[in-house]
Amino acid sequence: MKKTLIVGTVAYDEIETSKGSSGKILGGAGTYIALATAHFNSKSAIVSVVGGDFEEKHLNLLESKGIDISPIEIISKGKTFYWKGKYHNDWNKRDTLSTQLNVLAEFSPVVPEEFKNAEIVVLGNLHPLVQTSVLNQITTKPRCIILDTMNFWMDNSLSELLEVIARVDVLVINDEEAKQLSEKESLFTAAEEILKMGPKYVVIKKGEHGAMLFGDSQFFTSPAFPVKEVIDPTGAGDTFAGGFAGHLSESKEINFETLKSAIAYGTVMASFCVEKFGTTSMENLKKEQILERLKAFKKYTAYSL
Amino acid sequence: MKKTLIVGTVAYDEIETSKGSSGKILGGAGTYIALATAHFNSKSAIVSVVGGDFEEKHLNLLESKGIDISPIEIISKGKTFYWKGKYHNDWNKRDTLSTQLNVLAEFSPVVPEEFKNAEIVVLGNLHPLVQTSVLNQITTKPRCIILDTMNFWMDNSLSELLEVIARVDVLVINDEEAKQLSEKESLFTAAEEILKMGPKYVVIKKGEHGAMLFGDSQFFTSPAFPVKEVIDPTGAGDTFAGGFAGHLSESKEINFETLKSAIAYGTVMASFCVEKFGTTSMENLKKEQILERLKAFKKYTAYSL
Repeated sequence: MKKTLIVGTVAYDEIETSKGSSGKILGGAGTYIALATAHFNSKSAIVSVVGGDFEEKHLNLLESKGIDISPIEIISKGKTFYWKGKYHNDWNKRDTLSTQLNVLAEFSPVVPEEFKNAEIVVLGNLHPLVQTSVLNQITTKPRCIILDTMNFWMDNSLSELLEVIARVDVLVINDEEAKQLSEKESLFTAAEEILKMGPKYVVIKKGEHGAMLFGDSQFFTSPAFPVKEVIDPTGAGDTFAGGFAGHLSESKEINFETLKSAIAYGTVMASFCVEKFGTTSMENLKKEQILERLKAFKKYTAYSL
Repeated sequence: MKKTLIVGTVAYDEIETSKGSSGKILGGAGTYIALATAHFNSKSAIVSVVGGDFEEKHLNLLESKGIDISPIEIISKGKTFYWKGKYHNDWNKRDTLSTQLNVLAEFSPVVPEEFKNAEIVVLGNLHPLVQTSVLNQITTKPRCIILDTMNFWMDNSLSELLEVIARVDVLVINDEEAKQLSEKESLFTAAEEILKMGPKYVVIKKGEHGAMLFGDSQFFTSPAFPVKEVIDPTGAGDTFAGGFAGHLSESKEINFETLKSAIAYGTVMASFCVEKFGTTSMENLKKEQILERLKAFKKYTAYSL
């Protein structure tokens, strides 16, 4: 069976929106990515770390989706990474109310032997040195390395981030972060600059406004899947990356055409994610729903000239 | 030959952006709409009014595009409608620095005999009573009536606006205005509310984020055409409406499928408009460029599953 290696946080989140408060719930980039890749024909493993407070039911949940959780280190005396955030009416903006790194502060990722030759590697948002450490443990060149990151690392660990960016195939990043990383105002010139940093492809996520793909002197633009009511956008970007990676894991070739389809998959997966608080949608999602929504998305976006 | 009747302002604009100032230039919704419809296989006429200051060269320009300018009334003792605006870094927002209605204040539109049976009617942004007056002069039910409007009329002439909305086939409106008109926060519920007001279809324009089409229990969403550098967004919405109307004028049937294609045409036309100040792009646009960009847009947005 094919293998997808994911490194990312497995965490507890507390989310406030105008619609209500979530209480302490399962979260983390690694969690969201894996809940998405789990729907594809590839064995996913999460490399991460949690504390003794991390509930067994949450590990069981991930395992029940066929995700290999054995590379999630449990530090029984430590506490799980915790993030509390608040969204306003504009879903694209949020305030971080609290970040407690806890066990993440000294995370030293260990890639299991059997995943050192994973076909797809997804480096979820984490310290660039952790992402680099994962890449350094890989023994066989993956078919595709996908990196997600955020402005925090641009502000605090830019040189380490640039080093890992230079080693990946696809950088997935949001619009504001693309502008910050490239120091350019237009997304086109931003993408051009970022491609010079090493990745073959750049995917720019624009939240409710869709996503863009740049690379191979080609361009693709996609709207978002129309969601009637957004309840909680937490994890949408990670879920997008997971759906994107999941489709690539099933694709015979990895090229501009398959990356375009991967964006459709990522878009559809993310649309489920935002419809309920936290991981609720992703925990209950069925393959049929995904296929149905992909078909709808195609219908919503196709036209003839 | 088929006929497209346009009512809208023919005006002078003065535009300030971070890239510079335009000085006094040709503008107006009617102008932009007609410069777009002129590229399609239908005879366009503009019903409008200008003052004695309106330069002959600008009338000649419109006429040179095959636009029938005879229904543009010239009030030699009056002054042409003038608008001055300033854009900030967010192109979707602008400040009006000056609006001088001038001859527009007492505009009483007269539809020429030969256009009373126009197949396509485009009611550009103007006082709803002027739009209604045009509709009242129509003798043969048009294949399609398209209405564009803006928040100013919602604030100041809502009941008159609702009356004209009830009589049109397609309402073209931007996202903020759709929310204001419907008093709904989500664009989906906004569109549902607006459809109840009478139009068969609603097109919601989202500027650089594309457009959405609602109606017939169907939905379509499109990104914008990627423009490397926006120089001046003035007239983009009108040009979109013009391209949209132009394609419908050439379509055998007017249904959801042809409206989807019309959105692609509108999107591409608007993308030219924003690349230069004022009407500069639209004055020099060739049919081959439009077809080439339509092909590129299709390539930029198509994917297989």
